[in-house]
Amino acid sequence: MTWVEVNAAPELIHTPPLRLKQKSADRTALNTDMYCLLKCSPLILAVAVCHGWLFGDFVGKQKELDEISLWPLPQKFQSSAVAFKLSPGSFQIVHAKQSSAGPSCSILVNAFRRYFEYMFGDLKKHEKSRKKVYDSDLAELQVWITSADPECDGYPSLQADESYELSVDEPSAVLKAANVWGALRGLETFSQLVYRDDYGANNINKTDISDFPRFAHRGILLDSSRHFLPLKVILANLEAMAMNKFNVFHWHIVDDPSFPYMSRTFPDLSQKGAYHPFTHVYTPSDVKMVIEFARMRGIRVIPEFDTPGHTQSWGNGIKNLLTPCYSGSSPSGTFGPVNPILNSSYDFMTQFFKEISTVFPDAYIHLGGDEVDFSCWKSNPDIKKFMVQQGFGTDYSKLESFYIQRLLDIVAATKKGYMVWQEVFDNGVKLKADTQIHVWKERPQYQDEMAKVTAAGFNALLSTPWYLNRISYGQDWVNIYKADPQNFTGTDAQKKLVIGGEACLWGEYVDATNLTPRLWRGIPAEPLFVGHCRQEYMGL
Amino acid sequence: MTWVEVNAAPELIHTPPLRLKQKSADRTALNTDMYCLLKCSPLILAVAVCHGWLFGDFVGKQKELDEISLWPLPQKFQSSAVAFKLSPGSFQIVHAKQSSAGPSCSILVNAFRRYFEYMFGDLKKHEKSRKKVYDSDLAELQVWITSADPECDGYPSLQADESYELSVDEPSAVLKAANVWGALRGLETFSQLVYRDDYGANNINKTDISDFPRFAHRGILLDSSRHFLPLKVILANLEAMAMNKFNVFHWHIVDDPSFPYMSRTFPDLSQKGAYHPFTHVYTPSDVKMVIEFARMRGIRVIPEFDTPGHTQSWGNGIKNLLTPCYSGSSPSGTFGPVNPILNSSYDFMTQFFKEISTVFPDAYIHLGGDEVDFSCWKSNPDIKKFMVQQGFGTDYSKLESFYIQRLLDIVAATKKGYMVWQEVFDNGVKLKADTQIHVWKERPQYQDEMAKVTAAGFNALLSTPWYLNRISYGQDWVNIYKADPQNFTGTDAQKKLVIGGEACLWGEYVDATNLTPRLWRGIPAEPLFVGHCRQEYMGL
Repeated sequence: MTWVEVNAAPELIHTPPLRLKQKSADRTALNTDMYCLLKCSPLILAVAVCHGWLFGDFVGKQKELDEISLWPLPQKFQSSAVAFKLSPGSFQIVHAKQSSAGPSCSILVNAFRRYFEYMFGDLKKHEKSRKKVYDSDLAELQVWITSADPECDGYPSLQADESYELSVDEPSAVLKAANVWGALRGLETFSQLVYRDDYGANNINKTDISDFPRFAHRGILLDSSRHFLPLKVILANLEAMAMNKFNVFHWHIVDDPSFPYMSRTFPDLSQKGAYHPFTHVYTPSDVKMVIEFARMRGIRVIPEFDTPGHTQSWGNGIKNLLTPCYSGSSPSGTFGPVNPILNSSYDFMTQFFKEISTVFPDAYIHLGGDEVDFSCWKSNPDIKKFMVQQGFGTDYSKLESFYIQRLLDIVAATKKGYMVWQEVFDNGVKLKADTQIHVWKERPQYQDEMAKVTAAGFNALLSTPWYLNRISYGQDWVNIYKADPQNFTGTDAQKKLVIGGEACLWGEYVDATNLTPRLWRGIPAEPLFVGHCRQEYMGL
Repeated sequence: MTWVEVNAAPELIHTPPLRLKQKSADRTALNTDMYCLLKCSPLILAVAVCHGWLFGDFVGKQKELDEISLWPLPQKFQSSAVAFKLSPGSFQIVHAKQSSAGPSCSILVNAFRRYFEYMFGDLKKHEKSRKKVYDSDLAELQVWITSADPECDGYPSLQADESYELSVDEPSAVLKAANVWGALRGLETFSQLVYRDDYGANNINKTDISDFPRFAHRGILLDSSRHFLPLKVILANLEAMAMNKFNVFHWHIVDDPSFPYMSRTFPDLSQKGAYHPFTHVYTPSDVKMVIEFARMRGIRVIPEFDTPGHTQSWGNGIKNLLTPCYSGSSPSGTFGPVNPILNSSYDFMTQFFKEISTVFPDAYIHLGGDEVDFSCWKSNPDIKKFMVQQGFGTDYSKLESFYIQRLLDIVAATKKGYMVWQEVFDNGVKLKADTQIHVWKERPQYQDEMAKVTAAGFNALLSTPWYLNRISYGQDWVNIYKADPQNFTGTDAQKKLVIGGEACLWGEYVDATNLTPRLWRGIPAEPLFVGHCRQEYMGL
C-alpha cells in the first residue's frame, strides 16, 4: 500500500492479510489479537471482538488499538480513548460549507453513499424518521475540498494529490483535502475508524490524522487473456483495491491465448481472437464502465497491449501481422511475433493505438515488450535478409529494438506516455524521458535492475516480489510484505524515481472462480496461521 | 474417488479438477474440451457448451462424450447417441413397484428431492400443472432396492455395498441397488448424465451402467482445531463429498490449539479448551446434525481424538491430564503429552471414550498416536523413575507404546474398532486384527510403509500423497491424481488389505473463508490451465 507507516518497516502492497502490522515474528497474544482484529474486519472494523481482546491477557490494548485499526497506517495519527456514537438514522456525510465541491460533484456524492453503506449497511433504508441526536453522538462528517478545482470531472493521474487531513471530534468530523482524490482516501480511512462496541453500537474515537501516500503508483495487474474475467470480477477487484488504497489497475487485457478487447477499428481482432466473439469480449461500453467505476474510486486504468511477442491471438484477426515461421525452406503454418519488417505492421499499429489512446483516458499506455522469442524470426528467410540489410548481424535483439523503437514513436505521436517491461530498457531502446520501466525479472536481482533503471534517469516500477499468482504453502505473505521498492543501492535522486509497485496476478490458473480469494485472500481475509475470531466467517 | 476407470490409470481421489480423464500431457483440442466440459459443470453437466465443442475441430466427440461426462467413471458403461428429454414439470424419481423401500425410507425420499433440485433447480416450484409427456421424454427414474433390508435407518459402514445398476431407456430409467447406499451412488451418476442441449433443454442419453467402488474407504480429513469450522462449512464439504462419491468424513475435531467438541461428561474440555466456550464449539446437537447430514449422503463420520500428543487444549479442562514439564529440578509451568504414568489418565480416557463411542455411531474411532514429543517426558523426574521401574531404559517410544496399549484396550472395551496413525504400528504396539493403519509420512517412502503394514496383515489407509493443504504453484493436481494406494510391492492378499485413501486438509492456513475453494478448488472448479468456458462463472 505504499504509505509510510510510522515506526514501521516500509511496505508497499497491502493485500488484506498484510494489514497486519507485524512487530515480531513471535506468536504473542498481541500478534494473535492483531491478526484476528484485521481478519475479522474486512469492511467495518469490528474492534474488540477477537480472542485475546476479550478473553486473553492483552497488555496495553488501548495503546495498540490505534495502530492496528487502520491500513495502511496514516503518516500522522493521533487518537484518544474518547468515543462518539454514530447513529445510522441521523449521521450524515455532507459537503462542508467552505468546500469548492457540492452536490453536482458525482465522484463525491457517489462516495458519500458508498461509504455510508460500508459503515451501516442498508440500515438507513429502515429508518423512516430522523432520530434525535445526543450530545455524545457524532452528527456528521464534513468533506471540505480546498482547491479551486476539486477535479470532480477529472481522472486520477500519476501526479494526483491524494493527501488529506481528518479530524474526528464532536459535533462534527472534518475531512479536508485539496481535491476529490484525497477526499476518497480520507473517506476510506474514516470508514475504517468506525467500529462496533460490545453492544453492537457504532463508535468512533476522537482522532486526528494527516496522511499522504508514500508512492504515487500502487497497482494491481490482472490478466484477462489467459482466462476471461467477467466484468463483475473486475469491478469487485476495483472495490477491493479502493479499500486498500491501491490506485492503478494495470489491465493486461490481451495476450497469446485470447484477445477479448473489442476494437471499433479492427473488430476482427476480438471476433476471431477472443475465446468467444460475443460472450468473452469487453465491448466499448464494458471498457467505459470499468474506467468509470475505477474513476469513482480514484483508480487509474492503464491498459497493456503487449507486442511484438505475446500476440498469437492478434494473428487470428489481422492478416500478415505475425511473422510466418519456417520449417526448412517452407512456411510451417505457425506464426511468431509481430512481423517487424513489413510497413503494414506499423500501419496497423498506428491505427490501433490511435483508437486505444482515445478509449483509455489515462496519460500512459503499457506497451509490454517482454519475452520475445527469436526462433521464428530466425527461421524466416525474409527476416534473415532484412537483418543483413540493416547490418544487425545475428543479433535479433537489435531487430526487436528496431520494432519497439518504431512502435514507441507511433504511440508518442498520440501524446500518450508509455510503460514498458524491463527488456525494452535492457536492450538499449531509445526511450522518452518520462517512460516508466516495469521491473519484473528475478534474475538479475531486481535490486540491481532498479538501480540501473534509475541511474539512467528513468522512472521505475517494481513487480518482481509481488507475483501473487505464484502461491506456496505457509506464511508466504511475510516476504511479500517486507519487499520495499526503494531497497537498492542508489542516490536519493534515484530513489525518487521509484514511482511504486504493482502486484501481478497472472491468469494461467486464475479465473472468476478464484481471483478474489487468491488475490485478496478472500474478502474476508483468509487466515495467516492457527487462531480464531469471535465472529467467524460463516460463508462458504 | 477410488473407482476403477475402464482403460484408465487407477485413481483414488477426485477433487473436481481431477474429474478430467487425462489422455496425454498435450494441450490438444480434446483436452481443452474435456477440461472445459468438466469445469463448466459442477452440478449439472452442461455438455456442448465449451469452446472446442462448438467452435473447435473436435474429433470423435460423440465417442469421447460418453467417457468424460461422469466422474468417477463407472466400472461398466454403455451409452448411445439416442437422447431423451426430461421435463421438470413431469419427470419424477419414484420407488419401483418391486422395491423393498418405500415412502417411509427417509434417506431415499430425501435423496430424490435433493437430486431433483440438482438437476432442475427450483424449476418445479413454478410448474403448477403436470405437463404432457411426449414420446421422446424420459418420464421417470424408478429406484429399485433389491435386498430385504434396504438399510433405510442404518448407517453406512466399511462393509456397505455401494454397487448399483442403472439403465436409462424410454419410457423409464431404472436404478437397481441392493440397498440405499448403492442407490445414493446411482442417483449421483444419474444426475451427472443429465445435460442441457444447445437450446437449454434437459437431455439424457440412452445408457447402461454397472458400477461399484474400487475402494471401500474414500475419505476427507478436516481439521476443526487449528481453526474452528462453522457447521455450514462442514455440511458444504459433505455435500461436495457426495458429488464426488467420497464416503468417509474423518473429523480431526480436536488438537493442540483448541478443543471445540462439547463433551457431556467433561464439559470443561470445551468450556476451557475451545477458542470460545459458546461460539466456537460443536454442541451435541451440532454433532448429531453432522452425522445425520452425512448419513443421508452415505458418508461415515469417523472422529479423531488424537492422544497422547496433540493434546495441549485438553489440559485446560482436565487437571493433571498432561505431563508437567520440568526445567531443571522444578516444574516449568508448561505441559507435554498425556501423563502416561497416572491411573487418573486412564480413568479419564475410559469415561471419555465411553461417551465418544455412544455419540458417534460408526464402528471405528481414530485414536491418532502421531508425533509424540518426548522432551517433556524426559524432563520429568516422576516419568524417569517410572521408566526405570518398567525397565524401559531410555527408550521413550516404549513409554508411548505403554500408553497406547492401555488406551487401545480401553477403546476395545467399548466394542469400537480403531484407526491409528502409522507411528503406532511402527512402534510395535500390539493391535487388534481389524485395526486400520493410517499411512501419512513422506519418509520412509509411503510405498514401503504400505508394504510393511499389509505384510503384517493389517488394513492400510493412505494419505501421504493427498495432503491437499500443501498447495503449490502450477498443475499440482497431476501428482495428486496419479497416486495409487495399491502401487507398492506386495502380494495380491496384501493389496486387498488396502481399504482406500484419505485426502487431508490440515487447518493451519484454512478456515471458513477458504476451505471450500481450496479443497474442492471451488465449486465450480477453478481452472487447470489457460482456457475458457462458454458459460463462465460470474460469481465473485
